[in-house]
Amino acid sequence: MSLQDFFNARSVAIVGASREEHKTGHEVLASLLRGGYEGDVYPVNPKADEIEGLRCYPSLRAIGSVPDLVVIVVPAKVVPKVLTECASIGARCAVIVSSGFKESSPDGAALEHELVEIARRGNIEFVGPNCLGILAPGNKLNASFAGDLPPVGGIGYLSQSGSLLASILDMAMAEDIGFSRLISIGNKAKIDELDVIRALGDDPDTTVIAGYLETITDGDAFVREAERISREKPILLLKSGETGAGAEAASFHTGRLAAAEMAIECVFERAGVIRCESITAQFDYAMALANQPLPAGPNVAVIANAGGPSIMAADAIERQGLTLAKLSDTTLQRLTDGLPAVANLHNPIDLLGDALAKRFEVALNAVLDDPGVDIVLFVLSPHAMTECTETAQMVVRTARAKPGKPILACFLGARKVAEAVQVLRQGGIPRYKSPEFAVGAVKAMADYGRWRSRPKRVVRLFPVNRRKVERIIERHLRRDLLDIGEMEAQEILEAYGFVTPRGDVATSAEQAANLADQIGYPVVLKIWSPDIIHKSEVGGVKVGLTSRQETMDAFDLMMYRIPKRVPDANILGVLVQEMSTRGREVILGMERDPRFGPLMMFGMGGIFVEVLRDVAFYLAPITAEEAMEMLTSTRTYQLLQGADDREAVDISAIAEGLQRLSQLVTEFPQIQTMDINPFMVGPAGTTPVAVDARIKVAQARNG
Amino acid sequence: MSLQDFFNARSVAIVGASREEHKTGHEVLASLLRGGYEGDVYPVNPKADEIEGLRCYPSLRAIGSVPDLVVIVVPAKVVPKVLTECASIGARCAVIVSSGFKESSPDGAALEHELVEIARRGNIEFVGPNCLGILAPGNKLNASFAGDLPPVGGIGYLSQSGSLLASILDMAMAEDIGFSRLISIGNKAKIDELDVIRALGDDPDTTVIAGYLETITDGDAFVREAERISREKPILLLKSGETGAGAEAASFHTGRLAAAEMAIECVFERAGVIRCESITAQFDYAMALANQPLPAGPNVAVIANAGGPSIMAADAIERQGLTLAKLSDTTLQRLTDGLPAVANLHNPIDLLGDALAKRFEVALNAVLDDPGVDIVLFVLSPHAMTECTETAQMVVRTARAKPGKPILACFLGARKVAEAVQVLRQGGIPRYKSPEFAVGAVKAMADYGRWRSRPKRVVRLFPVNRRKVERIIERHLRRDLLDIGEMEAQEILEAYGFVTPRGDVATSAEQAANLADQIGYPVVLKIWSPDIIHKSEVGGVKVGLTSRQETMDAFDLMMYRIPKRVPDANILGVLVQEMSTRGREVILGMERDPRFGPLMMFGMGGIFVEVLRDVAFYLAPITAEEAMEMLTSTRTYQLLQGADDREAVDISAIAEGLQRLSQLVTEFPQIQTMDINPFMVGPAGTTPVAVDARIKVAQARNG
Repeated sequence: MSLQDFFNARSVAIVGASREEHKTGHEVLASLLRGGYEGDVYPVNPKADEIEGLRCYPSLRAIGSVPDLVVIVVPAKVVPKVLTECASIGARCAVIVSSGFKESSPDGAALEHELVEIARRGNIEFVGPNCLGILAPGNKLNASFAGDLPPVGGIGYLSQSGSLLASILDMAMAEDIGFSRLISIGNKAKIDELDVIRALGDDPDTTVIAGYLETITDGDAFVREAERISREKPILLLKSGETGAGAEAASFHTGRLAAAEMAIECVFERAGVIRCESITAQFDYAMALANQPLPAGPNVAVIANAGGPSIMAADAIERQGLTLAKLSDTTLQRLTDGLPAVANLHNPIDLLGDALAKRFEVALNAVLDDPGVDIVLFVLSPHAMTECTETAQMVVRTARAKPGKPILACFLGARKVAEAVQVLRQGGIPRYKSPEFAVGAVKAMADYGRWRSRPKRVVRLFPVNRRKVERIIERHLRRDLLDIGEMEAQEILEAYGFVTPRGDVATSAEQAANLADQIGYPVVLKIWSPDIIHKSEVGGVKVGLTSRQETMDAFDLMMYRIPKRVPDANILGVLVQEMSTRGREVILGMERDPRFGPLMMFGMGGIFVEVLRDVAFYLAPITAEEAMEMLTSTRTYQLLQGADDREAVDISAIAEGLQRLSQLVTEFPQIQTMDINPFMVGPAGTTPVAVDARIKVAQARNG
Repeated sequence: MSLQDFFNARSVAIVGASREEHKTGHEVLASLLRGGYEGDVYPVNPKADEIEGLRCYPSLRAIGSVPDLVVIVVPAKVVPKVLTECASIGARCAVIVSSGFKESSPDGAALEHELVEIARRGNIEFVGPNCLGILAPGNKLNASFAGDLPPVGGIGYLSQSGSLLASILDMAMAEDIGFSRLISIGNKAKIDELDVIRALGDDPDTTVIAGYLETITDGDAFVREAERISREKPILLLKSGETGAGAEAASFHTGRLAAAEMAIECVFERAGVIRCESITAQFDYAMALANQPLPAGPNVAVIANAGGPSIMAADAIERQGLTLAKLSDTTLQRLTDGLPAVANLHNPIDLLGDALAKRFEVALNAVLDDPGVDIVLFVLSPHAMTECTETAQMVVRTARAKPGKPILACFLGARKVAEAVQVLRQGGIPRYKSPEFAVGAVKAMADYGRWRSRPKRVVRLFPVNRRKVERIIERHLRRDLLDIGEMEAQEILEAYGFVTPRGDVATSAEQAANLADQIGYPVVLKIWSPDIIHKSEVGGVKVGLTSRQETMDAFDLMMYRIPKRVPDANILGVLVQEMSTRGREVILGMERDPRFGPLMMFGMGGIFVEVLRDVAFYLAPITAEEAMEMLTSTRTYQLLQGADDREAVDISAIAEGLQRLSQLVTEFPQIQTMDINPFMVGPAGTTPVAVDARIKVAQARNG
């Protein structure tokens, strides 16, 4: 059973079909008939003999054969009965349009749960409940009340909001945008967004997957599958509902972006999903990706017949971080030979207001042949002399003769270019009303193209002592201790190949001083007790001790004072530890997102994280390249290279630290948050030291 | 003579009128006639007797009366002759459509200069050359070849790009957007963008000024006048051509934004000009501002009939830094009483898919009456039951009954809401196709509203010794010395009330040590010579001297070594200076933009400016509030307040320093760039010290 079977249904039963117009049960039937559906249609309604000229059946069973698809439009409380009937006659695919489930009340949620159980037992797949239905224009199947069937095209669309789907459909019809399938996923009780994305991924008629989502059901699976499918087809998503919801969950790391929003950014980046900020942007990008090849790079050539719009395009290209292609000498020569002397031959090419289609053709051919051009942006202003339609025809013809590079068109104006716009549409050249929108689509294509051509991800696996960490974590969880103390945090770090500060526990002042002599000054003293997590708060940390005498004094003061403050603590002694004085302090961290798992965090210590929020996140497990990207994406990266005249530090050692931490938190889903702070890193060739760590654990969701 | 006279012309002569279709000279005449112009029309062309049924005149003089407006469409080289004829018959207003001037060649530029001279002598005002002409729909005047007259409305539009104007006109016609005037300013040889903006500011039919500009002719006047006009009417500008052009000019302060781009941002911020990133955004904002009152604050109430779009609106509101209004208890009670129990009553209010016009009306009235609501965003999805048109009528009616708060509508879809959209348009309710666009317009309104209601700008004038600075600068310029040395830079700072480090010049080691004793250790020694600007490079600076002995050693070493390195320098001694050890180093600076004058700069010293680019700019002269805004807009502001556990510093002392520097650079246009670096600022109550300054001067443009 797959979602394709829904779309390929050769017979459809509509349970709850109604004779009364404006009732959903009538609208679904009428939509199906209006769409010219060629299979059998069975209205089911015990109170009618005939609807819209079709024989009406009192029940599913009464049909006498098994419909490929059953659309259910009865009141919520009747739906379980209908679904049970589906199971009993052997129907396998249902669309439950009815509402009154999880979205409305706890009782409704219970009812919805019942549907899932019935479907599971009866081996039924269903879309919904609380949805508008499904549409497949190529199959003339409109099992919905979302509107009329749109034209056939390459965009497969799914929406968690029915009303948005209906609005999009209405808008798309007006702009003649074609679709392969449209699915209103409703409460997604059985078939969820990932099932749909997977089905659209497999569907040969779908070239671009687009959708609107408010929630993601299974984060891990989403990342894995979306990443796989993005390698074949672009996925364009509008994702809402992150800003407010996530705000409370935002941790100290994040300040401006809520944690949930940050997680979505990381997930989409990893999975190659193109995030769209508006419906318009989504269709701008979708039309480009559905109709044009991916660009090999970010170098854009602009061909225009007016100064203003070409400057606007050039500005937008620069703002979006794309590049105005540098035209080759050959190209410039061809333009010089083929064009009047007055035009600006350099990119953006301005052919002037009197350019006819022929002049555009010379320029278009020249830039398409230029190996330094990856993308062509064609900006036409409809002047009195402009041959709008002929130029559009020329663009379509040339694009067919020289495929390989994407061509996007910005034909300004409306009525004057109406015919030309039709020509472009039919010829598969995406058209934009304003240069900025065209450049926005170019940017989406270039980003996705880069993602697609990135090298294969290889996550390095370090040899570690996993068993040791497992024991420590299990011991904590058994005793319901959720903070891991310094002693054991250090053991965990060492088990994963981190170097921790040299040191040992002393039980007398004399022994402390001897240890300090061995380690070398300055040293740090820390009270050593499994019962004291926050050492500083009880006076259990003393830094910068530079002599035997200071060490002994500090030891004795701790031993005298702390038992008074924390009488119940079992004090095992005092840790005497080396104090790193060279290098920089950075923070390696992890926050586990409840949906998507561990987000790796990197930032320079102190004010850079706490005040300037200069922090990078990435979804674990990370590769060496991704660890480097995290570093270079911070503004403080230059400081690591010595931009403030301090010694440059070993960047690759930090990247390795991030990868080791990534491995640790991936292998132990019980670790909820973790920071190595500070991670002291010195110049190349030195070994960084994980000075301190904070680890919080909890029972893993699936552990 | 004002631009209004152009639009109120009761007779128009077209010199170069042509019988041949597709010729500009024909198109201008045809446009005028098609538009239903009610005044007299005189085609002028010696080669024709009659055009389009009108008598044609061989020359302007042959008309026998003086036309109010002369449109010139003859070849460039003939234009001076025609303009001379205008002068001789006493015509005062001309639109020069002809091209072939500054835009095409140096000869053309000379010809354009000639036009300006003829106009000056003949007391003629003219638009152009190289323009599409002017349009005034309310007067049925279309003296252009830009397209047909659009509907009458409140938007006055000017464009430096003819093709963009034509495209906008075509698009606006398709969307039924009304205009008061449209002006293609072309090469703006005589009437420039500011003349037009001023005229539109005075025009009672224009409620919103909008335009596209590539260059600004007189920066100072632009700032002054735009600020004055923005207090009355919004000015919405698309400004292009800043990114690339300015990149080379970018100074060390700026890294990401080119200096020119930064200047435009500062200018628009000061003058209240609303910058638009695209044509679409410009009309989105213009329609809101032309038809709706300004909001009193940023609190938005969203009324919707679907979950998805209301969440999208809420997300966009949060992203734009606006606020979802908190509804009062009274409002919630009214909603509870008047609406079904299932709707979400909290903002964003979701009235559900079955909401009829009546339900929308209850909600709209309730939020309009709520004092906590500043703006209403109405988001309608066209469901099967939705009364789109009735709801639109209700919105229009309610808005009229309860004016005062802006109402913006996002009616999703296309065909289903087509009639409703017409109703909204006629009722002055701006309509958007997507929630994000509506929220973008809300943001523009809220920002402009805040700008309009800001307190009056009062620039504090400090008592200073202006004469002293004048003498120093004049002396430098006379000798063509463009860098001002430390000695005199310090005098300049002191003349403007800055405190500089205590110190004096010593001519012997003994004297240096005595001075150091008086000042208190540590001290700094600096070689003292008018001929040495870069002291450090010749070993002329020694910091951190802590004793008599060290001071004497440093003195003697400088006196021994420096004369060898710089044999020609006149060495006057060594400056012994106090060394500030307390407080923070910040930078106060100024970069003079060639168009707009001094841009004030503030940043924390060191890496914060050089690596993190955490810098604020503001156009001088600045007020106390603006100085504070500069400080608070940096990310490092929290450090000044002690966020890194260092002592908080005297914020107001920094703000005063910025104001004093602002006064200095405003009063001396000769100062091209200036930095006080470091400006050492301590805790409240201490006096900050301007430790070092770098000043570059040049002949002022107008000085």
